[in-house]
Amino acid sequence: MTTQETTTTALIPMEAIREHWQGHRRVTRRVIEAFPEEAFESYSIGGMRPFSELALEMIGMAQPGIKGILTGNWSQDGELEHHVTGSTGRDKAHILRRWDEITELIDRLWPEIPEGRLEQVETAFGLYNQPIYNTLLYFIDNEIHHRGQGYVYLRSLGIEPPAFWDRR
Amino acid sequence: MTTQETTTTALIPMEAIREHWQGHRRVTRRVIEAFPEEAFESYSIGGMRPFSELALEMIGMAQPGIKGILTGNWSQDGELEHHVTGSTGRDKAHILRRWDEITELIDRLWPEIPEGRLEQVETAFGLYNQPIYNTLLYFIDNEIHHRGQGYVYLRSLGIEPPAFWDRR
Repeated sequence: MTTQETTTTALIPMEAIREHWQGHRRVTRRVIEAFPEEAFESYSIGGMRPFSELALEMIGMAQPGIKGILTGNWSQDGELEHHVTGSTGRDKAHILRRWDEITELIDRLWPEIPEGRLEQVETAFGLYNQPIYNTLLYFIDNEIHHRGQGYVYLRSLGIEPPAFWDRR
Repeated sequence: MTTQETTTTALIPMEAIREHWQGHRRVTRRVIEAFPEEAFESYSIGGMRPFSELALEMIGMAQPGIKGILTGNWSQDGELEHHVTGSTGRDKAHILRRWDEITELIDRLWPEIPEGRLEQVETAFGLYNQPIYNTLLYFIDNEIHHRGQGYVYLRSLGIEPPAFWDRR
């Protein structure tokens, strides 16, 4: 069977895309909160990274990511530095504070994204040359993927994870 | 800070959406393949379902899902019956065959989806009253979420999972 390519287009409101992203970020925030502090920073299965490291990876995509989406500047330099006295940089309180800052940053910058911007093809972070909507979907998919890993960590610790489907 | 809602719209080609879905389904297929037969049917961490059950859930969404997207008939009745003599219904060969049938079904039905269909608000499977694009994103997100669980199962079995980012 050959695939018959379609030429039709879906019209997806920018507001629905923002809500989709932020809805997933709300679930991930609850997963971070559900971890006991020590497990958050060190618990691992099969040699995989602790959930704090995964959360830092998500932060390291979302923060420069929203700026790249808006401006076309995909530099990650300096974005990941966020030193706080008395913090390991991996503790829950610190990571949740950064999480919330990015939530506000996305909400603040989102309305400035010009019409047609998501359809532009650009090389994000020197890696993916594709339309911006694919890059954004990659950020979200990467978060869901690693968060799914966090659900297993929580379950194996005997902790009920937050509902996957509840995006409020 | 109040969120300033935007009224702009992203234009996403239907072909890009099909490719996004099928790209993820290709990765999931490789995850199914990576499991040893017995682990596929029975391996679990933290009381979670074995990957065969998760794959059956994905099949149970994708198969009636593509039909619902096209026709508005969201019935799941009968879709999940697929008896094969000499098969447990949970073995890899059987599930991979069903997987491939759905891959072809999606490719075959996709070009028939009318312009504007994804923007229609509809109650899918009696659960989600939302635009079809959100329902489709839910199918994909649910697959990524459970597949992430499968990555932990594989790692804890000492098996290198397929690359998450490789959607070919």
